[in-house]
Amino acid sequence: MSLTARIRSRLEDTIIWALIERVQFPLNESIYKPGAIPLPEASISFMDWYLREQEKLQSRIRRYDSPDEYPFFPDAVEEPILERLSYPPILHPCSRAVNINFKIKEFYTNKFLPAVCPDFGRPDRGAQAENYGSAATCDIASLQALSRRIHFGMFVAESKFQAEEDKFTAMIRAGDREAIGNAITKPEVEKQVLARLKTKAEAHGRDLSNESYLPKIDVNAVVNMYKEFVIPLTKEVEVEYLMQRLS
Amino acid sequence: MSLTARIRSRLEDTIIWALIERVQFPLNESIYKPGAIPLPEASISFMDWYLREQEKLQSRIRRYDSPDEYPFFPDAVEEPILERLSYPPILHPCSRAVNINFKIKEFYTNKFLPAVCPDFGRPDRGAQAENYGSAATCDIASLQALSRRIHFGMFVAESKFQAEEDKFTAMIRAGDREAIGNAITKPEVEKQVLARLKTKAEAHGRDLSNESYLPKIDVNAVVNMYKEFVIPLTKEVEVEYLMQRLS
Repeated sequence: MSLTARIRSRLEDTIIWALIERVQFPLNESIYKPGAIPLPEASISFMDWYLREQEKLQSRIRRYDSPDEYPFFPDAVEEPILERLSYPPILHPCSRAVNINFKIKEFYTNKFLPAVCPDFGRPDRGAQAENYGSAATCDIASLQALSRRIHFGMFVAESKFQAEEDKFTAMIRAGDREAIGNAITKPEVEKQVLARLKTKAEAHGRDLSNESYLPKIDVNAVVNMYKEFVIPLTKEVEVEYLMQRLS
Repeated sequence: MSLTARIRSRLEDTIIWALIERVQFPLNESIYKPGAIPLPEASISFMDWYLREQEKLQSRIRRYDSPDEYPFFPDAVEEPILERLSYPPILHPCSRAVNINFKIKEFYTNKFLPAVCPDFGRPDRGAQAENYGSAATCDIASLQALSRRIHFGMFVAESKFQAEEDKFTAMIRAGDREAIGNAITKPEVEKQVLARLKTKAEAHGRDLSNESYLPKIDVNAVVNMYKEFVIPLTKEVEVEYLMQRLS
C-alpha cells in the first residue's frame, strides 16, 4: 500500500467515526436553514454561523497553513497565534486556489444527512428540545474530515503528474479535462475503496457490547455517499489542480 | 443492559476513537507547558489557551446547558446565542457544583499521554515543524469525551440513590464517604467494563485495510487509564454528588 493510499485509508476511519457520532442525533433540519434560528448575524444558518466561528478560531492555531486543510469560509481566516508552519513543499502553489467545500457542504447537508439520520418518527421539536449544538458539532467534525479526504486528491494528482509529466503536460496544454479525468480514473482502485469502506463501516458500526443491537449507522448510505459524491468530487479536485499545475 | 450502561458503553467508543486520532501525533509536550509557546495571553499553555477559546465558543451554542457537560474553564462560559435548553430535570441541582475537570486534565496530560504517544524516537522539533494544533484539537475531543464519561457518574449515582433512598440518606447524613464509596462499587461491573474496553480498543485500533500493520493504539495503556483514573474518578464524582444530594 502506497503512502497516499494509507493516508486515504486512515481518513476513512476518521470519516466513519465522525458520521457515527453524527447519526446519534436526528436531522434537526432547522440548523441548516438561514433564518430558521434567530442569531446575532441573522442572514445565515446556525450551522454556518458555528462552522464560521470554529474556522475563525482554528485559523488562529494555523489549521489552514496545513496543505491538506481548506476552509469553508476563507473570509473568516485570521492571523495565527503560532509561528507559521514550515511544511515541506509537496504541492504546486496553485493548490491554494482549489477549494470545493461549498459542494461538499451541499451534498452532505442536502443528500447525505437526510438519507442517514434517524428521524425517530417525528419532526424537529424546536430549539429548546433539540440537540442543535451537538448535531452541529458532529457536523463540523464530519465536514472537516470529508474536506480533507477530498482535497487530499491534490497529493494523488501531484504524484500522478510527476510519474507521467509529459503525458499530463500535453493534456493540460490542450485543456482536455475529460482526458485528464480518464487518465486519473482507476475503476479497480475505486472498487477496492468502496469494499474497504463497507467492511470498515460494518466493523466500526457494530455494537461490541451487545451484538443484538442495531448497527450504529446505515452502511449502505455511507458507501453510496462515497460512490456518488466523495469519489467524483475527489476526481474533480484532481482535475482542477492539474489544470493549474503549469501556471 | 440498562440505559445508563448503554450510554456509558457508547461513550467508550467515542473515547477510543478520539484517543486513536490523538496518537497519530507525537507527544508535543511544549503545548502543555505554560510559557513554552509565546501566546497573546502569555501565562498559560497553548493547550489551555485553545481549550478555553473552544469552550467560550461552545458555551455560545449552549454546550454547558446540557446536564452531562462540564467546562474546564467555567470562567470562560458566555451567554448562549440559542434559546436556553429545557432539559428534563433528572439530576439534583447540586450537580452543577461537581466538576473535577482539573483532575481529568492532570492525569490525561501527565500520565496518559506520555504513556501512549509515539515519540518517533526524537524530541519536540519546535513550532514550525510540529503539528501543535492538530494534537491539541484531538486533545480537546479526548478531554471532552473523558469529562462527559466521568461526570456521567452523577446519573448513575442518582439512580442508585433513588433505588435505595433510605440507605443512602443515612450514609450521607453521617458524612460517611467511605461507606458511600463502598455502596456504589461493583467490582464485577468494573471487570466487565475493562474487558469490554479491551475488546473495543483492539477492534477499533485494528487496521482493516492491512492486518499486518501495527495496531493504531496501545490497548494496555487505554485499559490502564480506565483502571487507574477513569473508574476511580467516576466514583469520586458519584460520592461528591451524593454528599450534596440532600442540600
